[in-house]
Order: sequence, then structure tokens, then C-alpha cells
Amino acid sequence: MSLAPWRSPLSHALERNRSSPESCYFQLATIRPDGTPANRTVVFRGFLDETNQLKIVTDARSQKVKQISALPHGEVCWYFPITREQFRLQGPLTLVDSYTPNRALQQARCREWQQLSDSTRRQFSWPDPAAPCGDRDDFSPPVLDTTQPLPQFCLILLNPITVDWLELRSEPHNRWFYQLNGDRTWSQQAINP
Amino acid sequence: MSLAPWRSPLSHALERNRSSPESCYFQLATIRPDGTPANRTVVFRGFLDETNQLKIVTDARSQKVKQISALPHGEVCWYFPITREQFRLQGPLTLVDSYTPNRALQQARCREWQQLSDSTRRQFSWPDPAAPCGDRDDFSPPVLDTTQPLPQFCLILLNPITVDWLELRSEPHNRWFYQLNGDRTWSQQAINP
Repeated sequence: MSLAPWRSPLSHALERNRSSPESCYFQLATIRPDGTPANRTVVFRGFLDETNQLKIVTDARSQKVKQISALPHGEVCWYFPITREQFRLQGPLTLVDSYTPNRALQQARCREWQQLSDSTRRQFSWPDPAAPCGDRDDFSPPVLDTTQPLPQFCLILLNPITVDWLELRSEPHNRWFYQLNGDRTWSQQAINP
Repeated sequence: MSLAPWRSPLSHALERNRSSPESCYFQLATIRPDGTPANRTVVFRGFLDETNQLKIVTDARSQKVKQISALPHGEVCWYFPITREQFRLQGPLTLVDSYTPNRALQQARCREWQQLSDSTRRQFSWPDPAAPCGDRDDFSPPVLDTTQPLPQFCLILLNPITVDWLELRSEPHNRWFYQLNGDRTWSQQAINP
């Protein structure tokens, strides 16, 4: 597979915004079971091997996993503060949890677990997300296996089918729209901001 | 109307992140006509008068106006980089355009137009957003009336019914959930991060 044409400007943005820690975060929108939108900040974990799929990790007990299981589609909004540009990446989401039979995806899930920091790994042993707080004094972090993920550890893959890139620095702004065609090629077009 | 209990931590976040220009931006998720989520960065324009409604401005020709007209509900995800906290604000959206008959809302729309910078006002005279680019040389910015908004200028109001506040600085993190009750009072609860 060849890299999509939007990968080059995205790489440049990541490079030029390196000094801003929040440039590795973006906002992922999904749909709630009642049809309303949900939106939260997540950490960009790189691309899956030689694909154009963005990696995100999450907890199987989180609301977003329930939402993605019911409607596996999302849009990432990624704003880069130093260069003042925005990428909107929209497409189907793949949830890779402890039950996923696909061997390659399961290996990718394990590798992702191994690459986490200890403190991030520990978050997956915390009590049920969004449940009312119990007694914090009762909470003692367990010793975790760094090679084998906890069952609640999930990998999410976003496979973009459209990408909307906006540059705010120029006046008028510049904007490009990329679209994945049926034959797996990408078309791109300069559009009005 | 009294201020909602989440207004105080949000004010503190705005105050403490003042030195970060992007703390006045947030990501607004809405729903596309095909049921998939859309997500983009918008500028926070303050609260409407003495209410808890967040103000956003946009162009009537943008996709989000079509989306909001069809399904007037959104979630804002607002990340503050300096203090490392996130507010998720979800609720119905009100679109105030040139046809809105409500006099108070129409006045609010006019006031908002008057408060914009010249360069932001000028953006509303740009060619159709997201249409393929024409010849940029042909574009000459018109002189705009600073008191009377262009017809395409819209005010959007988000009236939060739930607010989810996450503080990432502590370990484990702190998280609070605020919910608007049927009697217009707010309940709040500490929940697991």
C-alpha cells in the first residue's frame, strides 16, 4: 500500500508542532446510541504498520467502545497550534479488543500495550470509568504484565476516507479536500476555506 | 437565571490558560445527514448574556449549518493545555440566522457581528465554503457594514444539558459529571476517570 497524499502535509505538521505536547492529541467524534454526537480528546498512537490507519487506545468499559460497537464511524479533528492548521479525518473505525480473532490485529494490540508507559498501562486497572467514585483510599494499583494486555485494553483504528486540511496562516486561508475513490486511489482538490 | 455549577471551574480554566491562544478554541461535533459524526474547531465567543449558553459564529453556507438545521444537537470538547483539563459540554443547538424572528436573538446576532474583528467579518464575504477554488486573483474583499451583519452570518448557541469535567494533573485523574435536571437545577457527581 502506498501512503495517501495527505500523509505528507500531516507529517510536516507533526514535525513543525513537535514542541507543542498537545499536537499529539486530537478530538474523536462518535455517535451515541440516541443519535447525538459524542466528542473527546484522545492520544494519537501513530499509524498501523504500513497503512493509513490512525491508532488510538482505550478501555473496553468506556462509552466510546459501546458507541463504536454500535456505529463504527468517526471523525477526528486535529488542530496544530504552532502552524495554525487543522486536519479533519473521517472514516470507519475498527475496534480491536481481547476477542478479536484476526491474528495480525491481535498482535498489533499486544505491541501497542507493550509500548505504553507504566502510568498509562496502570490506567486500565483503574475502577470502572464514569461510575460514581468509590473510596479512593481503597485503590491500590496492581503489578501489570507488560507483555500481555489486560482484557479491557482496546486498540481502535480509524481508516480515513476523506481528509479536510485547512491552513489558517494565509489570508484567505488555504484548504484541500482528499477523498478515497472506489479503486483505492485518492483524489484531491483545492476548495474554498 | 443562576450560573450553572460548572461555570466556576470553566472560568478558572479560561483564566489559568489565558496565555495559550488555543484555549479559546474548541471542537464542535455534530451529525451529518447520513448519520455519521462531523467535527471541527470553532472559536468560543463567550456566553449569551446572563445564560449558560455558549456562543459560536458561522457562515450559513457551511456544512455545519445544514447539519444543525437537520439535527440541532452537539457536543463541544474543550481541552486546556496548560492546566491539562477537559470539558465536554453536550446539548441542543440553536441556530440564529437572518430569518430568525425572535427579536432578542436577532439583537444578539447583530451585537456579535459588531464585535468581530474586520478580518473575521471579511471571511463572511469569501466565496462559498468548500466549493472548488476559483481564481483567487478575482477576489477583492468588499467594504462591509460593521453594524448590520451579512445575511450569511449566523450565531449558534449551545445550551449544555450535561458537562463532563476531567482533570489529568492528579493521579488517578479527577472527573466530575454535571447534569441539568427537569426542574432546571443541576446535579453533580464525582465519577471515575
